[in-house]
Amino acid sequence: MTSYSVAQLAERFALEFRGDGARIIDGVGTLAGAGPTQLSFLSNSKYSAQLTSTRAGVVVLSSDAAESCPTAALIARDPYVAYARIAALFERLPAAAAGVHPSAVVAPGARVSASASIGPCCVIEDGAVIEDGVVLGPHCIIGPECTVGAQSRLVGRVTLVIRVTLGKRVLVHPGAVIGSDGFGLAFDRDHWVKLPQLGGVRIGDDCEIGANTTIDRGALDDTVLEDDVRLDNQIQIAHNVTIGAHTAMAGCAAVAGSAKIGRYCMIGGNAGVLGHLEVADRVTITAKSLVTHSIREAGEYSSGVPLQENRQWRRNAARFKHLDEYARRLSALESRLSALEKDKSDD
Amino acid sequence: MTSYSVAQLAERFALEFRGDGARIIDGVGTLAGAGPTQLSFLSNSKYSAQLTSTRAGVVVLSSDAAESCPTAALIARDPYVAYARIAALFERLPAAAAGVHPSAVVAPGARVSASASIGPCCVIEDGAVIEDGVVLGPHCIIGPECTVGAQSRLVGRVTLVIRVTLGKRVLVHPGAVIGSDGFGLAFDRDHWVKLPQLGGVRIGDDCEIGANTTIDRGALDDTVLEDDVRLDNQIQIAHNVTIGAHTAMAGCAAVAGSAKIGRYCMIGGNAGVLGHLEVADRVTITAKSLVTHSIREAGEYSSGVPLQENRQWRRNAARFKHLDEYARRLSALESRLSALEKDKSDD
Amino acid sequence: MTSYSVAQLAERFALEFRGDGARIIDGVGTLAGAGPTQLSFLSNSKYSAQLTSTRAGVVVLSSDAAESCPTAALIARDPYVAYARIAALFERLPAAAAGVHPSAVVAPGARVSASASIGPCCVIEDGAVIEDGVVLGPHCIIGPECTVGAQSRLVGRVTLVIRVTLGKRVLVHPGAVIGSDGFGLAFDRDHWVKLPQLGGVRIGDDCEIGANTTIDRGALDDTVLEDDVRLDNQIQIAHNVTIGAHTAMAGCAAVAGSAKIGRYCMIGGNAGVLGHLEVADRVTITAKSLVTHSIREAGEYSSGVPLQENRQWRRNAARFKHLDEYARRLSALESRLSALEKDKSDD
Repeated sequence: MTSYSVAQLAERFALEFRGDGARIIDGVGTLAGAGPTQLSFLSNSKYSAQLTSTRAGVVVLSSDAAESCPTAALIARDPYVAYARIAALFERLPAAAAGVHPSAVVAPGARVSASASIGPCCVIEDGAVIEDGVVLGPHCIIGPECTVGAQSRLVGRVTLVIRVTLGKRVLVHPGAVIGSDGFGLAFDRDHWVKLPQLGGVRIGDDCEIGANTTIDRGALDDTVLEDDVRLDNQIQIAHNVTIGAHTAMAGCAAVAGSAKIGRYCMIGGNAGVLGHLEVADRVTITAKSLVTHSIREAGEYSSGVPLQENRQWRRNAARFKHLDEYARRLSALESRLSALEKDKSDD
Repeated sequence: MTSYSVAQLAERFALEFRGDGARIIDGVGTLAGAGPTQLSFLSNSKYSAQLTSTRAGVVVLSSDAAESCPTAALIARDPYVAYARIAALFERLPAAAAGVHPSAVVAPGARVSASASIGPCCVIEDGAVIEDGVVLGPHCIIGPECTVGAQSRLVGRVTLVIRVTLGKRVLVHPGAVIGSDGFGLAFDRDHWVKLPQLGGVRIGDDCEIGANTTIDRGALDDTVLEDDVRLDNQIQIAHNVTIGAHTAMAGCAAVAGSAKIGRYCMIGGNAGVLGHLEVADRVTITAKSLVTHSIREAGEYSSGVPLQENRQWRRNAARFKHLDEYARRLSALESRLSALEKDKSDD
Repeated sequence: MTSYSVAQLAERFALEFRGDGARIIDGVGTLAGAGPTQLSFLSNSKYSAQLTSTRAGVVVLSSDAAESCPTAALIARDPYVAYARIAALFERLPAAAAGVHPSAVVAPGARVSASASIGPCCVIEDGAVIEDGVVLGPHCIIGPECTVGAQSRLVGRVTLVIRVTLGKRVLVHPGAVIGSDGFGLAFDRDHWVKLPQLGGVRIGDDCEIGANTTIDRGALDDTVLEDDVRLDNQIQIAHNVTIGAHTAMAGCAAVAGSAKIGRYCMIGGNAGVLGHLEVADRVTITAKSLVTHSIREAGEYSSGVPLQENRQWRRNAARFKHLDEYARRLSALESRLSALEKDKSDD
């Protein structure tokens, strides 16, 4: 089992420590649950009360909070970031030996690095390229003209359909489908004609793609995710979308065709962006909101109405259907009242 | 073909029957579609009109409705529940012989019960446990430290990523991904740092998980579904969520990280629950509503506005942007009018 | 590489051409990006400005626009439809040789046409039928009593669970699950009893089913998609739904159980239709709207409120909770004001 002393962790992550530097840490836990050989963290003052009673061996926290820490402390400018880096030491990932599992099907025209690990039942088609140190878990399909960049990890059951390029250190979770046909149709009098989807998908370095997320390939140009884009589960990215670097999207969000999302955006769960819109850098969209026009300014944006007890909500929702009428009646009242007031003052 | 007489069905399910007990029943159908060897049911009075003209061999219904039944009747306190149990007799499930299909890949460190059935192309990794009577359809992936409880059935193409425990008699539909990484990120000045997801997923007995549903594993503690939780298709359950026993969620619902849903809740289609909230027992959330605050009382809750013809809706929706202003103008009018009225009465 | 002269394209697609008919075309591109051996198109006048500077070898456009075309032109009544048909010439689909890949598992009781192409790791179960010219990409599962109609293409990783019939020329994208259990439950005092799902799914000719879309099979009767239905990614179709011919649904839309959608409808992204409703032919539902009652008339329908900057939105959303009260106060004001006005005129 991996273990480090508090002093070793302090040195490795360039943090100051207080208390017993010799204490041995072999795992991580919550403030409430961690035991004497585990590290915990405090980054949200909401949990300060739990600090005083924690049984953790060491706590990562800010210098302010260190005063009230009953055990060893690692002082960090940003305790959450420091915790994230330290915790990674204690993650036990399944071993992935280099080589191709005998049940995998690798086409003769595919190029697979000798340092890559190709899991059971993977299918790698002609023209695919698997770079150094890549790990493909079981059941991945890497289609023609697809490249998986160095050190990327496809956890298992990932599909790259065609003309998909992943950068370096990309992490893709099971069920994700990248490079499927964009949804392009032309209506010919009484039936649909399909637009062939001739573009691809380009995904930058350090991106993460969640479970069962879908990213369609472009109609002519490519669908693009810049570096460090982070997508949660069940997100839908339509064809020809561009997502700027460092943007994060929560589960079930969706972006329609040809929309262009800026850098450092945060898109909430089940939020949507309509097609052909532009969203500026550093825009936050709250959960379940629908972006129906381009957003030119950084900031936080929302739509929707608040949750209420159903009987009360019904009454309000029914009134919404007459909102325009109410606004007109309000204006009319104001005019009539002003007239009366004028009469009054004229008296 | 399975068949039973009406009297046999009555005895087996402890129901009273009226009419011809010797009639042979070999299947089920709707009131409108069932033929003379089929059983149907009436549980919703909306369909009473169909009863009088049904050609079904026997109908499961309440004692009240039995009067108007033109054919044999099985009397049940709850006809829908009785029908559900009887209909199960007539379900033809694909046979699943015990044993491991030769195309499956079972790691030497996995433990598979001799009574389990492991379908084609399944991959079972080191440390996985498959208990008695389990059926894995084709293409299931059972990752390290995962346990599939006795008599559970994974229909096919189910992924248990890592540290997932399923209880007994759990039913999981194709495309479901359980135990994928929770979406945990810390922002470090200009880029994201991933939080390792060190917890697991614990799913109780008699749960059902729909097609393409995703359930992430916890960051430190586990994500938990208690017994008899029923999830429809394309549901997203984020890390560290707890869902109480007997709660049912309809398609495309989503629960954000660390939310705690009570027992006997009903969450409507595409409804959402924000992170870190608590929802009491026996709460119903209607379709597409967003829960933005904790709910402490049982009851029905909703958000959203009603559907309208687009031109009319546009006018009302545009007014919504000024609702606060209207409310202020309304209050101002009231004051002005009161003043006038007072003047009037002072006259 | 496939190539055609402009005159050849004109003849093949029955279009008039202007300019150099001998020019050789070997691909397609956007007006902005196409080079001298590529074809482009102009169907949206928004892009007219790009026409004058295009370097494309030939442009498909309407006769009106042809005047301003700086290069060869193909004149079409509907340039977008004509472009769709021509572009299909230049699509390079992965070759699919007839025959069964050695890693595929075909049950002895399955019937597979000799002209079908069955990819790596496919599983075809007893009673399945694969008709002429079908292409199954890698990892498809075709369950019992399923039929894949002639010339259909399942791109890869498609699951047909049981009792699913696909018509001719159906295209299904990866991760789609068709024929999974409908979500049918009866509540028996303190726990759920599952309703067996005994129906199937029938999908017409020329349908397209997007990536990770789910279509449940019926409880008793079938779930039905008529001909030429087009479903984008991550759509959820519940049991016993009927979708009329030529209806198209955008990503993440969902239809609840037993709803009946008409022909030639357009359902926007993440829109929802509640169960047991009927939607007439030629109805358009805008993105994220929820259909809560049957729609009897063709037309466009919407729900939702507009996106606003969060601070402003919060103020308006809070007021929504009192909308019913405001409406009453507005009516009361009107009465009081009328009374005052009457007094005034009586003076």
